[in-house]
Amino acid sequence: MARDDTASETPESHVRDLGTRARAALPALAVASREAKDAALASAARALRAGRQALLSANAADIAAARAGGMAESFIDRLTLTEERIEGIAAGLEAVAALPDPVGRLLDTTSRPNGLVIERVAVPIGVIGMIFESRPNVAADAGALCLKSGNAVILRGGSDSARSTALIVEAMRMGLAEAGLPEDAVQAVGTYDRAAVAELLRGAGGTVDLVIPRGGKGLVGLVQREARVPTLLHLEGNCHSYVHEGADLAKALAVIVNAKLRRTGVCGATESVLVDRAIAPAFVPMLAEAFAGRCELRGDAVAHALDPRIVPAGKEDWDTEYLDAIASVAVVGGLDEAVAWVNVHGSHHTDAILTEDRAAAERFLADVDSAIVIHNASTQFADGGEFGMGAEIGIATGRFHARGPVGLEQLTTYKYRVRGSGQTRP
Amino acid sequence: MARDDTASETPESHVRDLGTRARAALPALAVASREAKDAALASAARALRAGRQALLSANAADIAAARAGGMAESFIDRLTLTEERIEGIAAGLEAVAALPDPVGRLLDTTSRPNGLVIERVAVPIGVIGMIFESRPNVAADAGALCLKSGNAVILRGGSDSARSTALIVEAMRMGLAEAGLPEDAVQAVGTYDRAAVAELLRGAGGTVDLVIPRGGKGLVGLVQREARVPTLLHLEGNCHSYVHEGADLAKALAVIVNAKLRRTGVCGATESVLVDRAIAPAFVPMLAEAFAGRCELRGDAVAHALDPRIVPAGKEDWDTEYLDAIASVAVVGGLDEAVAWVNVHGSHHTDAILTEDRAAAERFLADVDSAIVIHNASTQFADGGEFGMGAEIGIATGRFHARGPVGLEQLTTYKYRVRGSGQTRP
Repeated sequence: MARDDTASETPESHVRDLGTRARAALPALAVASREAKDAALASAARALRAGRQALLSANAADIAAARAGGMAESFIDRLTLTEERIEGIAAGLEAVAALPDPVGRLLDTTSRPNGLVIERVAVPIGVIGMIFESRPNVAADAGALCLKSGNAVILRGGSDSARSTALIVEAMRMGLAEAGLPEDAVQAVGTYDRAAVAELLRGAGGTVDLVIPRGGKGLVGLVQREARVPTLLHLEGNCHSYVHEGADLAKALAVIVNAKLRRTGVCGATESVLVDRAIAPAFVPMLAEAFAGRCELRGDAVAHALDPRIVPAGKEDWDTEYLDAIASVAVVGGLDEAVAWVNVHGSHHTDAILTEDRAAAERFLADVDSAIVIHNASTQFADGGEFGMGAEIGIATGRFHARGPVGLEQLTTYKYRVRGSGQTRP
Repeated sequence: MARDDTASETPESHVRDLGTRARAALPALAVASREAKDAALASAARALRAGRQALLSANAADIAAARAGGMAESFIDRLTLTEERIEGIAAGLEAVAALPDPVGRLLDTTSRPNGLVIERVAVPIGVIGMIFESRPNVAADAGALCLKSGNAVILRGGSDSARSTALIVEAMRMGLAEAGLPEDAVQAVGTYDRAAVAELLRGAGGTVDLVIPRGGKGLVGLVQREARVPTLLHLEGNCHSYVHEGADLAKALAVIVNAKLRRTGVCGATESVLVDRAIAPAFVPMLAEAFAGRCELRGDAVAHALDPRIVPAGKEDWDTEYLDAIASVAVVGGLDEAVAWVNVHGSHHTDAILTEDRAAAERFLADVDSAIVIHNASTQFADGGEFGMGAEIGIATGRFHARGPVGLEQLTTYKYRVRGSGQTRP
């Protein structure tokens, strides 16, 4: 970030300084043309490609440190950049440039009997703090989406990806400068002191409008304790696939194998399979057979009795997001019990019903209180790209402002423009 | 609320109990038909009219207590119910019944190349805590809007209106019961201990999804300290009317007199008048003349020098919402200075420019960061009814989820319904 840390700087003052710089960038960002924003993204993509050797070296150092720290292979994989992944990040920036500008969209217009014309128009949210973990590409994705939506972003990634993230942020800032936009539209927190995260969540002295915390259970408590500004939580995805008694069992099995095993580390991966009692004797052994050697199944007493390859589950399994080749299996009494189960044990992220019974499917879609409810498809479709949104900064698991994939539109708010000719209110 | 208070009940446990009851009401509310919700509102209106004598007596007792407590006349006025005002409250319930149901609106539909059909559909937010002050009608307005939007509401009004509010809530609950809907869709906090407000703001043990705090500066600090759930703030309205050098001065004056004096106690009332230096010698004396004897004007040195009826303002005047027959007047150097002034001293509520210069107006509308920006009309149009929204629960002054009037649509969130035929993600 090319900034001198003075001896008197604390994590809090550092974050407040970033917030002040970000706020100063807002007026220019809010009125930036689409052309300027897209040019910044294209320049950043070029800079990333041109600097890929340096980025690979920095990433190798991050990986070496993580290995020395004994991190798991799944973690190392998320951290790792390759030529191909760097090209993917650059292409991602260009993909965001190709998306329509979400700022200035006319959301609706009303002409009042008194002649006032009232327009509701999309505007940026302001300064966004983004807290994420080890994937360095999130810095580019979040930076691109915030920039395109006219917001300034303060990125705070995991310390393990510090070297990689710094170079990605540098490329974004180079792109901004080349396009004549304020570099401070994209900044990174320069310390991994937890106090900096807490200060972001407190709003950094009134400079931060929104924090997007993307992470696991550890982050929940911190957000709950410290957040004083609005947050768009991207927390757990304890997703369910429910096999209703009216399911086509072969179709249901194919969908569930994909929902669990296509990638086990994504938030839309199914973690728990619910099976109606009526079809459990037929379906549970099919499930055990399909998953044998590929995925551990932990089931309730009924599931275990139906197939001994399903090991007994503990109580905590029903509320666990494994993000691994493990799934829980519970046998339920029917649709009502399945809906109640999902609403209690799920994380309101993505839940699916597999059935050929259309009425049952509609009841599930209506009654399950999740951001995404699915009939007869894989929960792994929970993704902004798959929803046609182009790109996403995460999946919102709260209820406010946005639910599900957070893309460009969700990163805007609105204001009312009222045009009159001297009207007074009677 | 017909509940026994046990000796062991604390304000916190009381509020958590209300939250638990409210959550239990949600599933039935979320799927309630428009007919049932409208019937509940119509029944509540009938109950209010039938019980108006009892309500007037209860209100008289509230007023007597407030007078004994030495409350100001403006406060007493807000507290007072009359036959006419009760009829207005009942008619307000019927007006909400006449509005379209905001739940289930199809916000958009996408058909993906793989055959998935993705719908975004409006759903209730959940349990809403509503904190308000002395106007008893807010209980009816908020109750009606929350019910119609499928939310359960926990009302916490000012202690001064306790007797009046209790009867209004009783009428709402009677209406719910008659329509076969859960009475606990509308509840009132049964204690005026501040700890109950804090517990609501903390989410009452995870039972509350959103709090709408509607009040003055005193509430800001409490919300800032205690809130752990999303809030839709309805705080100050330090609204500006800016007379640009290109204004039609007579038109501008008429608009400003209305913006300040139509009603001085509403949040959309103009509190501060900005006048371009170029037209100040002409306009400031016109303003002083029009307001003489009707409204105190506190001005900067230039304004005071132009007309001695304008008394010198103190520094705090620029940030003060008077809600009274007082306004501040500042002379500014032009559009840029006016925009900067409003963005610093305003409360991001409602701000207007008076000018015949269309380009200047468009810049003001673009650059002023307020929920409502107005060209050539009174700031007192800041009202859901005037915006064609039918009714409002307040004016949101934050940036998140909703800005400006909060009506039925703003009281909903959404979910995605995805319908497939066995799709798996490649």
